[in-house]
Amino acid sequence: MNKKGTMDSVSRSAKEEMFRQRARVIWLFGISAAGKSTLATGLEARLHAQGFATRLLDGDNLRAGLNRGLGYSDADRSENLRRVSEVARLFVDAGIVTICSFITPLRAQRAMAREIIGAADLLLFQVVASYAECARRDPKGLYARAAAGELSQFTGRDSSFEEPLPGDGVVRIQTEGVAPEASLEELHGHVLPYVRAERAETGGLRPES
Amino acid sequence: MNKKGTMDSVSRSAKEEMFRQRARVIWLFGISAAGKSTLATGLEARLHAQGFATRLLDGDNLRAGLNRGLGYSDADRSENLRRVSEVARLFVDAGIVTICSFITPLRAQRAMAREIIGAADLLLFQVVASYAECARRDPKGLYARAAAGELSQFTGRDSSFEEPLPGDGVVRIQTEGVAPEASLEELHGHVLPYVRAERAETGGLRPES
Repeated sequence: MNKKGTMDSVSRSAKEEMFRQRARVIWLFGISAAGKSTLATGLEARLHAQGFATRLLDGDNLRAGLNRGLGYSDADRSENLRRVSEVARLFVDAGIVTICSFITPLRAQRAMAREIIGAADLLLFQVVASYAECARRDPKGLYARAAAGELSQFTGRDSSFEEPLPGDGVVRIQTEGVAPEASLEELHGHVLPYVRAERAETGGLRPES
Repeated sequence: MNKKGTMDSVSRSAKEEMFRQRARVIWLFGISAAGKSTLATGLEARLHAQGFATRLLDGDNLRAGLNRGLGYSDADRSENLRRVSEVARLFVDAGIVTICSFITPLRAQRAMAREIIGAADLLLFQVVASYAECARRDPKGLYARAAAGELSQFTGRDSSFEEPLPGDGVVRIQTEGVAPEASLEELHGHVLPYVRAERAETGGLRPES
């Protein structure tokens, strides 16, 4: 019995070729209500319609299952994001375009994702809107609850959100004062060259422009 | 901003239709050296060659990443398998035929996998060879080390392996006294009707025959 080659029985590149795509992890981060979920679901729908094999990972499907039992302390958020990164790695190795949507408030957490997934396979996007605008949108009522003192560890209020630094290779997608369709169009335009087989770039992501 | 529909942006069935397949989790269990890895990699290679979108999950790729830090106590093995099951669920929801290869020694662990993945999406196969035959094969030298008292919690020796019960809906694949190609042929024959779009069965797995 041969115990070697477990991972190589079918290579990632063979799967990417079958899907006629390049696998990448597209990681959207930003404060609550900035528009991550809307962009993530919109991007997945659009890529699927174009024939890409995709998977969306977000708090809704991860925290209810794999990451059940983890809370919102910095340590638990980091373990949550470590597991997400490892799962994203498993999907990208299966040739799948993987979209992650998580607040990911700390630079160290984004660095960990890059470490686990690999810089060449990770596209980091900050979904940007001001705290005031997100509090105004407040689709889940979280900002109101935080203002009433009902939530602890609320990102942007009790818990810090660290802005990316210029060298972090993050593309900013503005959602404040921009129509949702326009933000999606911009995100999709950034992503497409990296996942298209015909003219996929090989390394990393575009520098912030 | 719409916060609903995160999971449903692209449904599993839409993905299955794109892949022209039905997603299932094919879970191979059995003692060390019974032939799980050989069958798992062989099955993946064969399904891939037939155009199926697949992912293989095994100890090699899970314990090095997602499940790093977990040991081999019953509690750690169960947490290991809980996470594997949750990840398999994420793959099957993405329309992927997912092959899991883990000792999975306890009936409660197999029941947990069924609970998390869902009975209709899980095909359980026991890869069967006697302890004596596995000790003879011993590709990783584990049986020799266990015999020398160098390993604790070795399944079948210090740690129990619970045989499935008739009602557990497990198909047995014999690898002792059978050519590896014949075992693979048998496994593949069992799996194909469940993953083929044209004539996929809808529920559960075949009763043990």
